[in-house]
Amino acid sequence: MSRPINLNADLGESFGPWKMGEDEALLQVVASANIACGFHAGDPLVMRRTVRTALDAGVSLGAHPSWPDLQGFGRRPLTMAPAELEALVIYQIGALAAMAAAEGGRLTHVKPHGALNNQACEDAALAETIARAVKAADSTLILLAPALSELHKAGERAGLPVAAEIFADRAYTEAGTLVPRNQPGAVIHDHAALTVHVLRMLEAGGIVTVSGRTLPCPVDSICVHGDTPGAADNARRLRATLEAEGWHIAPLPEVLETRP
Amino acid sequence: MSRPINLNADLGESFGPWKMGEDEALLQVVASANIACGFHAGDPLVMRRTVRTALDAGVSLGAHPSWPDLQGFGRRPLTMAPAELEALVIYQIGALAAMAAAEGGRLTHVKPHGALNNQACEDAALAETIARAVKAADSTLILLAPALSELHKAGERAGLPVAAEIFADRAYTEAGTLVPRNQPGAVIHDHAALTVHVLRMLEAGGIVTVSGRTLPCPVDSICVHGDTPGAADNARRLRATLEAEGWHIAPLPEVLETRP
Amino acid sequence: MSRPINLNADLGESFGPWKMGEDEALLQVVASANIACGFHAGDPLVMRRTVRTALDAGVSLGAHPSWPDLQGFGRRPLTMAPAELEALVIYQIGALAAMAAAEGGRLTHVKPHGALNNQACEDAALAETIARAVKAADSTLILLAPALSELHKAGERAGLPVAAEIFADRAYTEAGTLVPRNQPGAVIHDHAALTVHVLRMLEAGGIVTVSGRTLPCPVDSICVHGDTPGAADNARRLRATLEAEGWHIAPLPEVLETRP
Amino acid sequence: MSRPINLNADLGESFGPWKMGEDEALLQVVASANIACGFHAGDPLVMRRTVRTALDAGVSLGAHPSWPDLQGFGRRPLTMAPAELEALVIYQIGALAAMAAAEGGRLTHVKPHGALNNQACEDAALAETIARAVKAADSTLILLAPALSELHKAGERAGLPVAAEIFADRAYTEAGTLVPRNQPGAVIHDHAALTVHVLRMLEAGGIVTVSGRTLPCPVDSICVHGDTPGAADNARRLRATLEAEGWHIAPLPEVLETRP
Repeated sequence: MSRPINLNADLGESFGPWKMGEDEALLQVVASANIACGFHAGDPLVMRRTVRTALDAGVSLGAHPSWPDLQGFGRRPLTMAPAELEALVIYQIGALAAMAAAEGGRLTHVKPHGALNNQACEDAALAETIARAVKAADSTLILLAPALSELHKAGERAGLPVAAEIFADRAYTEAGTLVPRNQPGAVIHDHAALTVHVLRMLEAGGIVTVSGRTLPCPVDSICVHGDTPGAADNARRLRATLEAEGWHIAPLPEVLETRP
Repeated sequence: MSRPINLNADLGESFGPWKMGEDEALLQVVASANIACGFHAGDPLVMRRTVRTALDAGVSLGAHPSWPDLQGFGRRPLTMAPAELEALVIYQIGALAAMAAAEGGRLTHVKPHGALNNQACEDAALAETIARAVKAADSTLILLAPALSELHKAGERAGLPVAAEIFADRAYTEAGTLVPRNQPGAVIHDHAALTVHVLRMLEAGGIVTVSGRTLPCPVDSICVHGDTPGAADNARRLRATLEAEGWHIAPLPEVLETRP
Repeated sequence: MSRPINLNADLGESFGPWKMGEDEALLQVVASANIACGFHAGDPLVMRRTVRTALDAGVSLGAHPSWPDLQGFGRRPLTMAPAELEALVIYQIGALAAMAAAEGGRLTHVKPHGALNNQACEDAALAETIARAVKAADSTLILLAPALSELHKAGERAGLPVAAEIFADRAYTEAGTLVPRNQPGAVIHDHAALTVHVLRMLEAGGIVTVSGRTLPCPVDSICVHGDTPGAADNARRLRATLEAEGWHIAPLPEVLETRP
Repeated sequence: MSRPINLNADLGESFGPWKMGEDEALLQVVASANIACGFHAGDPLVMRRTVRTALDAGVSLGAHPSWPDLQGFGRRPLTMAPAELEALVIYQIGALAAMAAAEGGRLTHVKPHGALNNQACEDAALAETIARAVKAADSTLILLAPALSELHKAGERAGLPVAAEIFADRAYTEAGTLVPRNQPGAVIHDHAALTVHVLRMLEAGGIVTVSGRTLPCPVDSICVHGDTPGAADNARRLRATLEAEGWHIAPLPEVLETRP
């Protein structure tokens, strides 16, 4: 009997005349899409079209809110008063929710983008602000957060449904955080190694650190990147291996509903 | 027995460190608020606070979408492909709808802002795009449009609930359009004259033109301006006179529900 | 003895994480670059890098100011008060001039972008505003404008040095304006036909209309597009043909200085 | 014989339809203006008008570049790659320089705004990036920086003319930095106390700390705030007292030229 697992990717990151990513290809691989809401990428028309193609592919819809930073693609850390950030996140969720409704769909999750997500993984207060925003906008939304992160904990404290994600191509420290990109071995480039890494974490039911230790935690979703050459192809191969190993790729709501 | 009529005003037009308008005072006068959605004014925090104070004052909530034009306050005509405009309007409605939900309220109407509104009053295709956007975002939303305008007609064709507004301080041509501002007598500055103008239109059940002719049409709401000195005070006096004449100031949904 | 002619192209139209165009390739073909100033494309870093690579390629530097419209890539018509537009154009010219200075170069021309350019070709008042802005920013700057356009005339009336450009791939009406894109034959796709079209205009010393008539006017520059697949390659072939026919590809200042 | 000292203030911080500050009044008091460049406040038209009124008042012109943060008024800390920040600062300097030229004037100094300034006072690398940008844009520009700050030091290391400013209404720590606003006594509200504080620093030729110790350093300018009620009036009184004590209020270039 196959066990459900989610694959998620960031999508809808074109803007105006500028294209980005291999959305069409990725939508055939993942089961949940984190859709840019216009603050780091995406414009209203890109958002609507991404919603449409995601729904057509049977992919569940998530808002991917960001700091307001189009030029920096939301990757530059910023500081903001909690009330401002809370309103900012509600705003972006609402904009995408209306786009989903306009296409006959429904938003089911939220995943912060880039620097906002990174900062929220380590900063409990920031994480709480985001969780509060999601809850205020729609308390039935799933917060998709890195396993063991402050964001994950904040979501649980807020009483939100929370899904835990792992990164296929990143090594983890003994504390369960990502090995910083500037350290050797931080990014796993070899596809076979990356696949083994994911399978070990799924089998172990937790994060596997660089030393081989397991940190038990829920693992609901695997984050797949789409912004490097061949990314969609690699994601397709990972999905095929997961399915061969008895995993069933499912949208986030289904994974959470069928959790043991 | 008192007859219901709506008073509406544009609110939430501060942005970041810059303040605008007499929102607190106007919220004690009007029964429906058109709240800026961040494209000509308003930022997420201003939007949320305006929603909160409007709800506290018992004022019904409307989205006030605009062309993307912060510097020009949405007053500069722009041209956009229909699909782009449609998505743009859905985006803004959704952002405000989430803010309303976050404060325990509900959006009940939409009124386009500034140049977008003006253009839609004369351009049937543009008006249809806006009506389509409102319907796609939430088909129960009331479209608040100038009486006899192309926007009003487009809302009716789209099957939306439509409310017709008149302007207290503007003279009307024989065609039912506003006398252009650069013509003498276009704006009625005298408060007594303005009050008589409004009462005549309400009693006549239609627009009263400069020649004194009545163009029969529904009149559901009176638009009150808040951006001139003494505006809130004038609006308060108009409201008092209306009430003295047997009119009951009500939120838009109530006015539409009780229409004969 | 070879006669000088200029080739110009729009460059530096990437933004933040998004890439556009084949700048490196085009810089080997053209002699003058119209560099986006951040309002329709380009950000400060893209601008600086484009200036650097243009200088390295011996290509003269022009500002390419636009309506403020990143999402629409400056292609959507807008209306603005003359004083606002004038300041807007000065602002963009200054930003690029400083970038040129920072790289040891100097701005030598200005060419409006997209909808602003199109509108200025037909609207004498708008054209005058632009000419006034260029003159106010730096009266030694060359205004690069379509031959016979209102913009060209406005530049001359303002006493600016003006260079006239023709479009290699566009057919001209009997009035000397471009045949609208939605009409058959408006765009010349065949490379051989396009080359003949250009050579005829250069030899005739004026615009050659669809009927074959010549409208005498200065022709200082040929606009080459870079945003279609194979564009740089086509531009390279056009340049080679021009050189074979005895033309010498020169930066705009040189073309104007050596005018008979 | 009177000794020259400069008074400077932030000006031109209106945006589009929103007004801020008492520019007209402050321009009668200060001798140098730090003019917003469109990134935290100011738009091209506001910039041009502010330049015009400053020139008419005999006030010297400075660029007041900021992080790109209109909603946050440039007060929210941001992180950016050095090359991006450098280009950002050059861009803003250039835009204002062109506005100055358009009005027949000339930019003579640069002072970073808000969070960018605060961060540069403590972060030597950030300060160096800003100094490098100013030098690249125009190496004759005066960098106006808080006395004893990292920004002041970076300007000197870069070989720029540097002017040191003190704050009339702020207490200083033993290290010469501002007492943080959340500590008691950080802001000097009493006008008499503030005037004494300034005069002591001018006489001592350095910063006077809360303990009464003097940290010798050049003092070229006094920063005057304009964003609180009565600010312009207080500035006027401070100026009168300074003049009564034998000081001559002069534009920055004059202060630096006449330095002993």
